[in-house]
Amino acid sequence: MVDLILKKRAGGELSDAEIGFMIRGFVDGTVPDYQMAAFLMAVYFQGMTFREMADLTAAIVASGETIDLKAIPGIKVDKHSTGGVGDKTTLVLAPLVAACGVPVAKMSGRGLGHTGGTIDKLESIPGFRTDLGLAEVAGQVREIGLAVGAQTGDLTPADRLLYALRDVTATVDSIPLIASSVMSKKIASGADAVVLDVKAGTGAFMQKTEDALELARAMVQIGRQHGRRTVALVTAMDEPLGRAVGNALEVHEALAVLAGEDPPPDLVELCLVLAAHMVFLAGRAGSLDEAGALAQGALASGAAREKMRAWVRAQGGDPAVVDDPELLAKAPERTAVRAETGGWVQRIDARAVGQAALALGAGRTKKGEPVDPAVGVVLHHKVGSWVEPGAALATVHGAGRGEAEAAALVREAYVLAAEKTAPGPLVHAVVGDEEYENRAM
Amino acid sequence: MVDLILKKRAGGELSDAEIGFMIRGFVDGTVPDYQMAAFLMAVYFQGMTFREMADLTAAIVASGETIDLKAIPGIKVDKHSTGGVGDKTTLVLAPLVAACGVPVAKMSGRGLGHTGGTIDKLESIPGFRTDLGLAEVAGQVREIGLAVGAQTGDLTPADRLLYALRDVTATVDSIPLIASSVMSKKIASGADAVVLDVKAGTGAFMQKTEDALELARAMVQIGRQHGRRTVALVTAMDEPLGRAVGNALEVHEALAVLAGEDPPPDLVELCLVLAAHMVFLAGRAGSLDEAGALAQGALASGAAREKMRAWVRAQGGDPAVVDDPELLAKAPERTAVRAETGGWVQRIDARAVGQAALALGAGRTKKGEPVDPAVGVVLHHKVGSWVEPGAALATVHGAGRGEAEAAALVREAYVLAAEKTAPGPLVHAVVGDEEYENRAM
Repeated sequence: MVDLILKKRAGGELSDAEIGFMIRGFVDGTVPDYQMAAFLMAVYFQGMTFREMADLTAAIVASGETIDLKAIPGIKVDKHSTGGVGDKTTLVLAPLVAACGVPVAKMSGRGLGHTGGTIDKLESIPGFRTDLGLAEVAGQVREIGLAVGAQTGDLTPADRLLYALRDVTATVDSIPLIASSVMSKKIASGADAVVLDVKAGTGAFMQKTEDALELARAMVQIGRQHGRRTVALVTAMDEPLGRAVGNALEVHEALAVLAGEDPPPDLVELCLVLAAHMVFLAGRAGSLDEAGALAQGALASGAAREKMRAWVRAQGGDPAVVDDPELLAKAPERTAVRAETGGWVQRIDARAVGQAALALGAGRTKKGEPVDPAVGVVLHHKVGSWVEPGAALATVHGAGRGEAEAAALVREAYVLAAEKTAPGPLVHAVVGDEEYENRAM
Repeated sequence: MVDLILKKRAGGELSDAEIGFMIRGFVDGTVPDYQMAAFLMAVYFQGMTFREMADLTAAIVASGETIDLKAIPGIKVDKHSTGGVGDKTTLVLAPLVAACGVPVAKMSGRGLGHTGGTIDKLESIPGFRTDLGLAEVAGQVREIGLAVGAQTGDLTPADRLLYALRDVTATVDSIPLIASSVMSKKIASGADAVVLDVKAGTGAFMQKTEDALELARAMVQIGRQHGRRTVALVTAMDEPLGRAVGNALEVHEALAVLAGEDPPPDLVELCLVLAAHMVFLAGRAGSLDEAGALAQGALASGAAREKMRAWVRAQGGDPAVVDDPELLAKAPERTAVRAETGGWVQRIDARAVGQAALALGAGRTKKGEPVDPAVGVVLHHKVGSWVEPGAALATVHGAGRGEAEAAALVREAYVLAAEKTAPGPLVHAVVGDEEYENRAM
């Protein structure tokens, strides 16, 4: 192991066998955590080739079970977001692409820090179960074309151990390590193709677009080397996505998109772009445009909303929520955050809004902590909007905890200006292989 | 601790308090080894300022006991070599400078890998004790002006823990970490001034002269910030120093220097240069030249040899050895390594000769292993010497273990050429502060 650390420290490339030895040893305890910590720090400084990342991904996949979706006909497409504030796209996309005939089998995570997690959001639907066994996921996909379960320890245990060590050794923000971690979970989950939503901006893990692009390229290459068609979109995460931040509030907003009832335009746009790539990758359309039209049709026709009802029912939730979101948990206290002066919204710091939701109890700072499904923040003004002096910028939905802090964070998150700012583009870049790009256009 | 790792990872400078917190925590177990391992690797890549190195040194010193030499009158000067092959200078220097009236209180180490250690060499003198308590060292210095003991766990325990971790995490060869480790031991040992012999070349830890210079500068700065006058000489370690490599063989050679009986010129030269700096630093001479003359006089007059007798007697050894080195342990088997063709010796790879001695049992690959005092290698030709075809290049002194391997290593270590090569300079550079350089010249 010392030789492997030395090799990486000197900028060398580790072989498949060396990487396999290291990950197996780390999991079985023969490679101690202090050696792995030194190795991870050397990777932070020296990076990894795409080949090494693919081999690391394979070694992590090999450390646990994998989901076998081969019995389900069709090209199974997974989607993953690197995490943002107000990112409820999975809640819309899963039923939307399933309604287009694309089988969706997805293992999702819980929220941590200022970003939320799909599982926490789904659990705010009364009765909704996320502790599906691997066989149950496969069975439900065969039955209704769609299942989303919580990641379990059975998949990629090496990733859990590595992440826990990275978290305490300041080696989280290394692109090869992030890319291998994400892709190992995608590959172990059995999908044939993957659409990645790599967030860039103040509310994202990657603040700079160049870093997000580098991560996107790394993940696309890993997917390709594993024979999984992979496409990554680098998308904006400067202001929160949509208006709602907080578990039940985000479910509410996702249902509004499916119902076509005053949905936030940025959220609709991102869902349709991601859905188009998923439908196209699944081979359900001859071009991206055609795939986009299919998705738009499934949304407009109510087919996606109908799939949502079937999904909620299949996982034990109350399907009445789909038609009456008022059945979702509600926070007892609502506090308006008002503009002191008027102006155009120039910027809304997504990270600060995420931290406001965290302060209210919508998220957790440590794994295992419970979250309050009802609390969160709803923005009434997004970038490019005119605000009158004294108007409500946002509403804090609280339950007697952290409301003053949350209100202050939201107030500071808003930057008003005398001149109008147009919202920036939502999609910064699409990264796929050449063949994909030729076929898609 | 995560914040401190992040700070160093980003190239930041840690405060005195931060470094103290980290080292105390590492010693008491509240900073786990995996965090320290990540930190050490970050230091490998980002380095440390001289101020940080001085604070790290102070924190390591504070982790254990220190030797108080204040009761001994005069300026106490210590000497340290970064380790080479055939480096027996301490065996000559200690009695030589003591004979010039400079009190010597030195804690030395054992050999590891291809380099030997002073303590192993001294222990090849029948009866010689090196397990002196700290009080015993001070008492003996007061009595005969000279004591050399083995480093104990009471001094700088943090250094032992750090070194053990560096050894298994590929973070040994980091200049700030080496410099702090060496200087912490020197400062804890209570000397007022320190002369450092930083070896550069194939047989040294630092193969490149630039790296050795950088290490020399770092140690001089640390010494200065701790108020210890420190001078470092960067000296050649491309061929072994002198002719003998192996414990008793090196004692034999050191005694030849003290007796003036056909001593190797390079060894005599280095001893006199180092002695001059030690005597000058101790304030026993008005210039380096004067100090050199004093040392030369103590050697020529037999005063140094007389001090050697007193030293051996004081530490329980048989002083008769000084006059009759044949009393030292002898290896039962001697094998000549012969030149296949004739030529001028162009190069002798010191590392390979060190490894030959290790193969014979003169050294150890792991701490705690016993060494054989009698075995080793004696070179009959050094760089610049003419060798007849079939002449003995060297003699392997063995005891039934590793002799074939040792002979092969020694044979490969010698590079003969058609043209004569002059030996390179022994001293590459002297690093001290400006005041020292002005006063010395």
